[in-house]
This record gives sequence, structure tokens and C-alpha cells, in this order.
Amino acid sequence: MSLNSIFQYFVPKDRKFFPLFEQATANLVDISTCLVKVVSTTDEDKKIAFYKEIERLEHVGDDVTHQILLELSKNFITPFDREDIHALATAIDDVADYIYGSANRLNLYKITQATDSMVELAVLIQQACSDLHKAVCELKDLKNFRNITDSCVRINSAENQADHVFNKAVADLFDHEENALVIMKYKEILSVLETATDKCEDAANVMESILVKHA
Amino acid sequence: MSLNSIFQYFVPKDRKFFPLFEQATANLVDISTCLVKVVSTTDEDKKIAFYKEIERLEHVGDDVTHQILLELSKNFITPFDREDIHALATAIDDVADYIYGSANRLNLYKITQATDSMVELAVLIQQACSDLHKAVCELKDLKNFRNITDSCVRINSAENQADHVFNKAVADLFDHEENALVIMKYKEILSVLETATDKCEDAANVMESILVKHA
Amino acid sequence: MSLNSIFQYFVPKDRKFFPLFEQATANLVDISTCLVKVVSTTDEDKKIAFYKEIERLEHVGDDVTHQILLELSKNFITPFDREDIHALATAIDDVADYIYGSANRLNLYKITQATDSMVELAVLIQQACSDLHKAVCELKDLKNFRNITDSCVRINSAENQADHVFNKAVADLFDHEENALVIMKYKEILSVLETATDKCEDAANVMESILVKHA
Repeated sequence: MSLNSIFQYFVPKDRKFFPLFEQATANLVDISTCLVKVVSTTDEDKKIAFYKEIERLEHVGDDVTHQILLELSKNFITPFDREDIHALATAIDDVADYIYGSANRLNLYKITQATDSMVELAVLIQQACSDLHKAVCELKDLKNFRNITDSCVRINSAENQADHVFNKAVADLFDHEENALVIMKYKEILSVLETATDKCEDAANVMESILVKHA
Repeated sequence: MSLNSIFQYFVPKDRKFFPLFEQATANLVDISTCLVKVVSTTDEDKKIAFYKEIERLEHVGDDVTHQILLELSKNFITPFDREDIHALATAIDDVADYIYGSANRLNLYKITQATDSMVELAVLIQQACSDLHKAVCELKDLKNFRNITDSCVRINSAENQADHVFNKAVADLFDHEENALVIMKYKEILSVLETATDKCEDAANVMESILVKHA
Repeated sequence: MSLNSIFQYFVPKDRKFFPLFEQATANLVDISTCLVKVVSTTDEDKKIAFYKEIERLEHVGDDVTHQILLELSKNFITPFDREDIHALATAIDDVADYIYGSANRLNLYKITQATDSMVELAVLIQQACSDLHKAVCELKDLKNFRNITDSCVRINSAENQADHVFNKAVADLFDHEENALVIMKYKEILSVLETATDKCEDAANVMESILVKHA
């Protein structure tokens, strides 16, 4: 009996990890959508409502991560390698943390209008989160593993694009902005946004590694 | 024979890991106490003595970490999962590194008087280190596992408070300080202090995960 | 049959991991040599050629890392612990990433002349990469394990020196440079260079851990 067939045997029985991972990435879709909204409006009241919602969703994500790690501690048999489950849960949690971190800084640093680069990065994060959710939903049977691969390729591409947007935006800041305080604030927010896409890529890498072992 | 009872069987025999972990967290209590002293004085001579002591204690911590990882490499049977021992040792080492990193920057950047936020963060680090030590000392028999849980809850709370202190301090800097160089120096020191509490939380998370498996 | 002899038995058969690791560290020698060249010239055309070469070598490194992780996913039996192979491949990949990251920032921030500290750090990175390659080439038979230990000691020493160069350079910047934008750019480049030596040390630590288990 190959490892693969052992896997096929256990997967249908898993009622714990897959629903939790789907909750975690559905939450990423929500929180990233909220981030796009917050950088796309200049209405202060709406912004405050979005900031609060992002904070709430970050706590929701924390709870789901905590449940996944708890299940991992309690269960001897898991549908994937323990290290992959841990790495995937952690990467998804990190995405939510960095989304919250960027929104929190926009708020604290009183940025009334996000720059075009920030909007571009928020949209790339949203795309990557949407692909993460699609990929995670396919993990439970792996019948359409090509869909997972396609999502992972798009996530890698979003991360590459985010790198370019970030590098160009920072070089532009140094070229055109003279106020060091503004540069510091913007550069940090851009950096936190870019790191969110890195964490999406980390999650995609874990899924590709799961695919290699099982598909 | 359950994993748990295997564990109970081996634990009394462990003479290697528990004493080393207790040394490592006792060292954290010392180095964090020294950090509180350094941010609480404006006496230059005392400060220099504290900086030297913090550097010495950081080396002591390095040696203990090295011994733990060496024991881990040499021993096939360990009282906890290998990954947990590695993660706990690394997190404790990171706490000492960040405490030293913050003291070193206070010295290099010639900060003659630490800000109130820096003092608050140093005190939170000291509290978290004290709780880490208490929790580690209970690990060897797990009879009073609720004490470990209580310590971990307090460490998580210290980390949350440190987040708030940090975010507020940085926002205040941007609001009230005009000198970009001062902002850069202070922000970096605050960030290193805040990261020390993150590493305390990492260590607490490992202990909670050990508890779930064994208590 | 001891673990050690099982190891000795399997090692001669490994045709996958050792050649890939040697490729990965040979690539580090190339990319770090290119970094030294880029910080040692003020000729703009040569610099652009070096920047492009560093980018190309970073992609080469990515491909090798990807192959190592793919082999790791496909192979049940590996010459070292799976976690060590993963950690070593990741650390080597990180070194290349940080070298590329520093070159990319030199380019984006339009630094026409690298500072003495940047040159010193680039030379330390090159030395550490050269030692990493030497050590990795000895991993396949471990007959001369003392050579590996010697390389690791030199890498640790290079990292320590890099720490001192970095700390002194940043303190000097705050003391002698008034332009906050210049400080921000230089400090970030120095920090990325210093982190490259940290990643060399991470790789050396993995090799020392492999030695403890097998030599």
C-alpha cells in the first residue's frame, strides 16, 4: 500500500483540518477585500468602519489558526504531513497579520489618501487571497490538482508583481519626496503590504509541496 | 502504553534538557532585569556597566542554547518532541538577542535618557521573562500544568500590551517629533524592544503546544 | 546497525542532493564575487552589467533550491535528516536573496559609490560563501569533517565581524550624516548586507548539526 493510497484512504475521513483551512482562507478573502475598500476611499467614517472590521477579522483568523494548531497537537494521524499543516496554517495566519498591520499603520500614521502603489498592492493581495482560497478548497480531494497548480502559479506571479510595485514605489519616494517623515511612513506601509504577498507565496509553496507528495 | 505514559516514563530520567532550559530562562530573568536598570538610569557610568553585563549575559545565553541544540543532536530520545525543544531553545535565545540588540542600540545611538515607552516595554519584557522562567520550571513534572497555562496567558497579555505601547509611541513620534534622525533611532529601539515580547510569546506558544500533547 | 552506519551505507548512493547542494554554493561563490565587483567600481556600465549578472544568478539559485525541495518531496530516504536538508537549502537560498536584495537597492537608490563599510561587508559575504562551498563539498563523505568545522568557525567569525562593521557604520551615519534620506538608504543597504552573513551562519549551523549526528 503506497503512501499515496494511505493518503487517499484517510482523506475522506478528515472532518477537522479541511473545513478549518477553508474557514481560514475564506477569512483572508474577506479581510483582503476590506483592505482594498479602505485604500480606495477617502471617506473618514467609512475608513474607520473598515479598520474596525479588519481588526475583527484578524481576531477571527487568530481563532481559526489556534484551532488548527490545537487539532494538530491532538491528532496523531493527519491528512498531510504535520509540518505542512503547521506551515500552511502559519502562513495563512501571517497573511492576515500583515494585512491588519498595514491597515493599522494607515490609521495610526493618519494617511488620509493611500497612494496608487498602495492600492495596486492591496489589489494584488486580494487576488492572491482569492487564489489561496480556491486552492485550499481543492485540497480535500485533489481530483482537480491542476486547479491548485494554476492558483499557485497566479499567486507567485502576484508576488513578483508586488515586488516590482514596491521597489518602484520606494525608488520614486526617494526621488520625488523630500519630507523624510513621509518617506518613512509610506515606505513602511508599502513594505508591510509587500510582505503580505510574500506570505501568500509561502502558503502556495506549502500547497505545491503537498501536491508533489500526494497528487 | 500511551504516548503520554511513555512520556511520564522518560521524564524522570531526563537530566539534560530541563536543567538547561531552566538555566536559559534564569538567564532571561537576569538580562531583562539589567535592561530595566539601563533604561531607568541617566548615570553614564552605571549605564556602561549595565551594557557590559547585558553583553556578557547574551553570551551566557548563546552557550546554553548551543548546549541544548548539541544535546538534541546527540540524543535519540527526548522528553518532548524534537521540534518543540528546538523551537523553545530558539525562541529563548531570540529573546536574549533582542534584549541585547535594544541595549546595544541605546548605547550606539547615544540615547542618554530612555523614553517612558521604552521603560514600559522593558518592564513588560521583564515580566514576560519572569513568567517564562516560572513556566519552564514547571515543565519537568507537569503536575501543576495550570501554573504553566497561567504564565502563558500573562505572557500573551504582556505581548498585547507591548503592541499597544509600541504603536502609540510610534504614532506620537510622527506627531510630535520633527527631527527625522531622532524618529529613526527611537522607532528602531522601540521596534526591537517590542520584538523581544513577540519572542517571549513564541516561547509561550511552544509550551502550550507541549502541554496539549502531554498534560 | 547504528544510525551512523546506516548513513554510511546510504551516502555513497546519493546522486541527487550532494550535487545540487554543490551547485547551490558554487552559485553563492559566483554571486558574492559579483557583489564585491559591483561595490568596488564606479564605472556605471560595468555596474549595470554586474547588476544584471547578480539578478541572473539569483534566478539560477532559485531553480537549484526548487530542485532540492522537489527531490526532498519525492524521496523517502535522504542522506541527512529531512529538516536539515530543508533548512540548509533555505539558508543558502536566503543568502542569494539578500545578496540580490542589496545589489538591487544599490541600483534603485542610485548609489554611485558604495561606502567602505559596504565594501567590507561584501568581502565578508564573499569569504563566508567561499567557506560554505568548501564545507558543502566535504559533506558527501565526511572523511575530512575537521575541514567542515574549520569552515564553519570562519563563517561564524565573518558574521561577528559583519555585526561590528554594521553597528559602527550605522552609528557613524547618525553621527556624521545630516541628510535623513541618505541615512535611510545607506542604513537599509548595510542592514541587508549584514543579514546575508546571518544567513551564511544559519547554513553553517545546519552543517554543524549534521556533523554532530553523523561524523
